[in-house]
Amino acid sequence: MTEMRTLKVALLGCGNVGAQVARILIEDADALAARTGARLQLSGIAVRNVNTRRDVELPQELFTTDADTLVKDADLVIELMGGIEPARTLIVSALRNGACVVTGNKALLAQDGPTLYEEADKAGVQLSYEAAVAGAIPILRPIRDSLAGDRITRVLGIVNGTTNFILDQMDTTGAQFADALAEAQRLGYAEADPTADVEGHDAAAKAAILASLSFHTRFALGNVHCEGITSVSAADIAAAKDAGFVIKLLAIAEKLPAAGAETGGTEGVSVRVHPTLLPREHPLAAVHGAFNAVFIEAENAGELMFYGRGAGGTPTASAVLGDLVSAARRIVLGGPGRTETTTGHVPALGIESATTSYYIGLDVADQPGVLARIAQLFAEHGVSIEIMRQTIHTDSASNVESAELRIVTHRASEAALAATVEAVKGLDVINSVTSVLRVEGV
Amino acid sequence: MTEMRTLKVALLGCGNVGAQVARILIEDADALAARTGARLQLSGIAVRNVNTRRDVELPQELFTTDADTLVKDADLVIELMGGIEPARTLIVSALRNGACVVTGNKALLAQDGPTLYEEADKAGVQLSYEAAVAGAIPILRPIRDSLAGDRITRVLGIVNGTTNFILDQMDTTGAQFADALAEAQRLGYAEADPTADVEGHDAAAKAAILASLSFHTRFALGNVHCEGITSVSAADIAAAKDAGFVIKLLAIAEKLPAAGAETGGTEGVSVRVHPTLLPREHPLAAVHGAFNAVFIEAENAGELMFYGRGAGGTPTASAVLGDLVSAARRIVLGGPGRTETTTGHVPALGIESATTSYYIGLDVADQPGVLARIAQLFAEHGVSIEIMRQTIHTDSASNVESAELRIVTHRASEAALAATVEAVKGLDVINSVTSVLRVEGV
Repeated sequence: MTEMRTLKVALLGCGNVGAQVARILIEDADALAARTGARLQLSGIAVRNVNTRRDVELPQELFTTDADTLVKDADLVIELMGGIEPARTLIVSALRNGACVVTGNKALLAQDGPTLYEEADKAGVQLSYEAAVAGAIPILRPIRDSLAGDRITRVLGIVNGTTNFILDQMDTTGAQFADALAEAQRLGYAEADPTADVEGHDAAAKAAILASLSFHTRFALGNVHCEGITSVSAADIAAAKDAGFVIKLLAIAEKLPAAGAETGGTEGVSVRVHPTLLPREHPLAAVHGAFNAVFIEAENAGELMFYGRGAGGTPTASAVLGDLVSAARRIVLGGPGRTETTTGHVPALGIESATTSYYIGLDVADQPGVLARIAQLFAEHGVSIEIMRQTIHTDSASNVESAELRIVTHRASEAALAATVEAVKGLDVINSVTSVLRVEGV
Repeated sequence: MTEMRTLKVALLGCGNVGAQVARILIEDADALAARTGARLQLSGIAVRNVNTRRDVELPQELFTTDADTLVKDADLVIELMGGIEPARTLIVSALRNGACVVTGNKALLAQDGPTLYEEADKAGVQLSYEAAVAGAIPILRPIRDSLAGDRITRVLGIVNGTTNFILDQMDTTGAQFADALAEAQRLGYAEADPTADVEGHDAAAKAAILASLSFHTRFALGNVHCEGITSVSAADIAAAKDAGFVIKLLAIAEKLPAAGAETGGTEGVSVRVHPTLLPREHPLAAVHGAFNAVFIEAENAGELMFYGRGAGGTPTASAVLGDLVSAARRIVLGGPGRTETTTGHVPALGIESATTSYYIGLDVADQPGVLARIAQLFAEHGVSIEIMRQTIHTDSASNVESAELRIVTHRASEAALAATVEAVKGLDVINSVTSVLRVEGV
């Protein structure tokens, strides 16, 4: 082989993913060089403490605490520190120096993506972040490039492995949330402080990124309506199962049309994260354990699904290295960097404009005419009922009969649904509203 | 918007896919221009007969029979004529003129890809062919770019919708092959002459393309071992179902290690198409009807799956337009085209080197010691048995008992398996070998 150019790669952060990236850069150096057309030389690893013990053995001389100097001398910078600062300052510094940047920092991208994209555009360099959403699954490049000639209408993603593991455990074993969470923590699928996962914050950051790429418009974390899974009960899961559904925490981004009362008259995109009922035959329902998947509906392509490992050091490192090789090839071949397009300009809609089907569980008095009164009330609020199912329970001691009513609606707006549920609560024949859950994929 | 550059797009062929591409280029012109940074002007459509009636209404003045002239004046050429000639000559002419080419011609790519890649490299232009494999599913770009920093070890693809529809029908309804084929033809999922689909030729061309990109080495159609589904019987499907498997026609490309008798001592890639048993819980087992999916195993990423519509005019048009916008953006931004890398240089292995698990059905005499003799014979040939299951049938009229024996082996080479089956046939206690089928995903 004739003499090859060498590109200097600075790595910021050496946690779970960073350590695997460093290992692969060293072990697979020859194969990476052959595919890139340049040698990718790991010039240093910036960490807080150079003496921390790491799972992967790496040359001690690579470690430094001086991230600034490391970044200034790099052709490519990989940011895997996480958090907002100093990650943001270092990324901006790298871009201004003309380095291409690869990051997996979803929180930073969701909070301050536009600043970073503009810096990359100005410098004409590449900012890549495939690892930020759904770990190893190639999803951002297919959305940005492969579907560039299509119109995405809806994205449904299982993008948080921790919550998928917990919900899957609850579904399989009948466990309560707290027990399934404890099991996930025991197996290393959930952190000691699980807030970011179980409250949906991690999924919300990924939803903002997916929505931005899918609809060519910049959405920030503040545009995402977010509900976690802490209030999902074993009873909810059992009722869903009984009705042929499974409950998943979905990141949803969907285009809503301009016309019609349902959307309040404004065309826009609804971006949200919430527990969702899916029919058991939906492709996303078969995504088990800590796996991730993103389901896309596009006008021409129809239904697509991308499935794989959403986390873990080695799988996520694969996504980082894919971005790195692509950016390096671009340096070798010439040609400017490319970030997302923002030609869409569609507004983010509030959760009140979202439309989904709903599953509603009611504990009602067993009296003649109850079903009719409830059905009438739904109709008055413009919410159409698809399925209504009543089960009678008899308490043998008191001989009192009560009835459980399960309703699945057609698509309705959050606003109409909320008004309906309020009105239902006011009926004297209602003992309690046992659950209100959104349904997709029907 | 300031004045935008216009790029001329020549379309060759106006069948099912071509007509949809033309429609979208006209209808979505503004959105495509916004995303591309240039207007994509459909300059003409080359067809054999300009007066043929088409399903989509298109301006009559676009049609021409003079493909040569159309190609000479184009910035981008979309080839959707199919077949080897004149498609090859027109593509080469376009590339030499400096035009980027988008094609969905799997037969041409599998037969003569290297010639085309070299012409594109020489001219420094882009040759893209996402539509050639698995229709609307973005699969080639993820393999080429997203997994560029990883090592793919195995690809399993359901890449032919016709055969998947037929096998799915047989599995669901218990139909025989001929009846399921007739149903597929009635519904438009199979051609009047279904040979290319049911004999596996279409899948084999796609296997060659998938293998080439996955292993950075050029594989041609001649490197692909190909078996179709015409000999798969309703009894095979029923037996597989009973044992917890489903039968799919898979396109398989897998790296086999250098060491060990199993591979004959040569490292290489086995590329093959054949009916395959998959456990019902495997993600590919849930791919129903005419859908396609590609399952990838990579060293770092682990398991990935890509799912969607593998055929149809509009879905395939989405893949064509994704390639077109990407190629056009490259023209606008500058920078040379990029085709596949061929740095792998791994040899293609013959089917005798392939290793899979096998399912073997035997009709045996019900005598003591039969199981032991058969097990001994497998052991002598180095084929390890994973599951052995015997079912006794009694014919009430004659009172003769016979036994059905089902065996699933661990991974073994084709050569060892063939020798074992030959030896088994020679046993006096064997009435017949009822089926020998390969198994993946166990």
